[in-house]
Amino acid sequence: MQIVNLSIFLPQLLVPIHPLLATATKAENAPIVLTAVLLSLVVIYIASKIGGELSKKFDLPPVLGELVGGVVVGASALHLLVFPESGANASDSVLMTILQMIDNLSPEAVQSIFESQSEAISILAELGVIVLLFEIGLESDLRELQKVGYQAAIVACVGVVVPFVAGTVGLMYLFHLSAIPAIFAGAALTATSIGITSKVLSEIGQLKSREGQIIVGAAVIDDVLGIIVLAVVASLAKTGEVDIFNVIYLIVSATVFLLGSILLGKFFNNSFVAIADKLQTRGKLIIPAFIFAFFMGFLGNAIHLEAILGAFAAGLVLDETDKRKELDQQVIPIADILVPIFFVTVGARVDLGVLNPAIPENRQGLIIAAFLIVVAIIGKVVTGWAVFNQPGINRWAIGVGMIPRGEVGLVFLGIGAASGTLDKPLQAAIIIMVILTTFLAPPFLRLVFKQPVEVEEVVEVKQPADVAG
Amino acid sequence: MQIVNLSIFLPQLLVPIHPLLATATKAENAPIVLTAVLLSLVVIYIASKIGGELSKKFDLPPVLGELVGGVVVGASALHLLVFPESGANASDSVLMTILQMIDNLSPEAVQSIFESQSEAISILAELGVIVLLFEIGLESDLRELQKVGYQAAIVACVGVVVPFVAGTVGLMYLFHLSAIPAIFAGAALTATSIGITSKVLSEIGQLKSREGQIIVGAAVIDDVLGIIVLAVVASLAKTGEVDIFNVIYLIVSATVFLLGSILLGKFFNNSFVAIADKLQTRGKLIIPAFIFAFFMGFLGNAIHLEAILGAFAAGLVLDETDKRKELDQQVIPIADILVPIFFVTVGARVDLGVLNPAIPENRQGLIIAAFLIVVAIIGKVVTGWAVFNQPGINRWAIGVGMIPRGEVGLVFLGIGAASGTLDKPLQAAIIIMVILTTFLAPPFLRLVFKQPVEVEEVVEVKQPADVAG
Repeated sequence: MQIVNLSIFLPQLLVPIHPLLATATKAENAPIVLTAVLLSLVVIYIASKIGGELSKKFDLPPVLGELVGGVVVGASALHLLVFPESGANASDSVLMTILQMIDNLSPEAVQSIFESQSEAISILAELGVIVLLFEIGLESDLRELQKVGYQAAIVACVGVVVPFVAGTVGLMYLFHLSAIPAIFAGAALTATSIGITSKVLSEIGQLKSREGQIIVGAAVIDDVLGIIVLAVVASLAKTGEVDIFNVIYLIVSATVFLLGSILLGKFFNNSFVAIADKLQTRGKLIIPAFIFAFFMGFLGNAIHLEAILGAFAAGLVLDETDKRKELDQQVIPIADILVPIFFVTVGARVDLGVLNPAIPENRQGLIIAAFLIVVAIIGKVVTGWAVFNQPGINRWAIGVGMIPRGEVGLVFLGIGAASGTLDKPLQAAIIIMVILTTFLAPPFLRLVFKQPVEVEEVVEVKQPADVAG
Repeated sequence: MQIVNLSIFLPQLLVPIHPLLATATKAENAPIVLTAVLLSLVVIYIASKIGGELSKKFDLPPVLGELVGGVVVGASALHLLVFPESGANASDSVLMTILQMIDNLSPEAVQSIFESQSEAISILAELGVIVLLFEIGLESDLRELQKVGYQAAIVACVGVVVPFVAGTVGLMYLFHLSAIPAIFAGAALTATSIGITSKVLSEIGQLKSREGQIIVGAAVIDDVLGIIVLAVVASLAKTGEVDIFNVIYLIVSATVFLLGSILLGKFFNNSFVAIADKLQTRGKLIIPAFIFAFFMGFLGNAIHLEAILGAFAAGLVLDETDKRKELDQQVIPIADILVPIFFVTVGARVDLGVLNPAIPENRQGLIIAAFLIVVAIIGKVVTGWAVFNQPGINRWAIGVGMIPRGEVGLVFLGIGAASGTLDKPLQAAIIIMVILTTFLAPPFLRLVFKQPVEVEEVVEVKQPADVAG
């Protein structure tokens, strides 16, 4: 407090020149930053649990509820959790106002604490998405993928290329967006959610059908493609310009990085198991695994791709070891506490107010949102007609099965929002696209598999509470 | 990059006035901050694992190795991990120099990334110590404590009061330190390490002896006392003055907070179990537990005590539920990845160079270190003579058994260093005190239990590799 007050008597000029003064203030604020971080985490966890459980009750994927929970506590509604990147100040944050009352802080101190807290939560969210991708990597089975083969690969490629091209070109020529945000938004349309798709398929008993196998295989492949696309697009956003050689370099380096680490991983696997077997102290499996995952993440960032690409590659590699199950078991609680931070902050960063139809200036944003949703749906439905040599296959089912977007789409949104590439209406449009495709896919899928009535009944009989609720 | 360069053309004055400019730079640096955090975590994990495993090999507690690993990578030796609070700049950090080469950054950008990275690692370390205390709380059994009774309580109180008073008074009157740092350093001498003590006792087969039971009981009680003392002392350090009413208020509020939460916890227990049983989505046990722990931590901070006191109370409360074992299981991997960040950064923050005996100005610091070590040992050895009504008891064994300091002493050091209360020589003196008491206790304990030769042989026969190594 003393030093904060002292700074009032100093000319403003002195503050940035004497870094020691700034550091002293920071050290003094440190316990309050921790208080703010703890309170933010409490808000995040409560939002994620209430949202997740409500989703589950309505038979929707919990991740959707976590996202909506984030929207509720964030910039759109309660303002408990807001971020300075969107132009918010400490006074816009209800949480900061609470802290200011408790600790009787000066406005400058609150602003500094607000920025430190936001940065800490952002880093935790980024560690969350890294752990999420590491876990997805651990759960993706490379051998299974090879079995589904060409059909799934073609469906995946069509399902990546069509929405990406249609989205980007449409945004640039119909809505006159500049190239980088258009490419980013187009890319956010590419990746089907494995989790949501496979859950719905298993609920309607179609997971092991020909269509189900192709859908799941394609969803896994387009996740990988999506992560490569993200690495390329995020890197373009950093330099701020689209240079064809740079694009080629990025695509090649992302592919080489991923394939190279999988190939090298086959050798590394044995040493990893040998090291983990030798260690005697606590964390003997999880710490070497995290050293590997974080180092790969660092490498991914260092070669100007994305940390999550490295973490995903690390997961794919360690999936091949004997330790897989034990590791999976230990990653689960870590993911449980870190991943919700990512999904909730993605939701919290978005201000749905920018799409309020009552305000005339918002029309453009609403039209863009509608456009993205149409492209997102049609761009995936057409994939059903990419299947060949499969007489009698249900092409509608495959196309509709590919519709739901989820985790990876949100990763695009999170990175685009944090880097400032996506403006507010575009962020809101993408989050609505993710929410709507996820909401619509389950009933559509039941419809095209032509068993809507029976399934509804089974669900109702199983959970009578839902009928009342 | 563009905006960083732009700031050169602007008068220095403008930078703090236009927060949007600063934010833009921050957003641009964000991916590099993440790269820096990932690389720091890789360094921290490697240091903790190498240190921990080497300690284990030499039959010492792993936490000591993690601490020494931190010293090696930190300000004392490799300079991979340094912190701005100690006056270090980005150019002092080897890790930042590596990043600067990879990303070709301007000196201003590197400094800003360095500060953000240090802040993120500090928050992760603080979350680590919160999880650590939550876990210690989960593992402390209140009913066991009640059994050991008065003897242990008296040993604990003597073992807290004697080193605290002797240390504080000695530092103030012999070495002319001002009150706050003297009290902080004195308080750092109070808490015996449960983990280290009980491990050594079990190795020499004395855990269930009368002496062993009193030692372990007293170690648990003085951990609790130590955490209360820490909450009080850290709060004094924040206000910067010792006011007798404030001290009384703090002691009362810390005790009431701890006892109150345990009593209220008895009611809360059932609702916690009921909630956890109702939840269906991932993290249904760990997320409610962390909401509770973090909220208690927030409360602890909000009433100007410490977050760790709240986390410890939360652990004690949840220890009483049926979910205890399941929860313990899930907290372990989370603690495994967060707690080492705390111990390694505590070691890394300390610059042992300030005790280099070759430099004459360091003599004072060295003498203080020697004084603290003597007080730390004698202050605990005398506790043996506090035992009454126990004819034939080995008083030396009890006194020596209380010597090793560990986690809680390091928590004092970490908080004192981060808040700037402890100057560099005092930090170095405390870390040497913790290391030496932990090193010395095992052989001393074997000596006073009068079975040095046999035990050594058993250990050698069990682990023949150690003799060669």
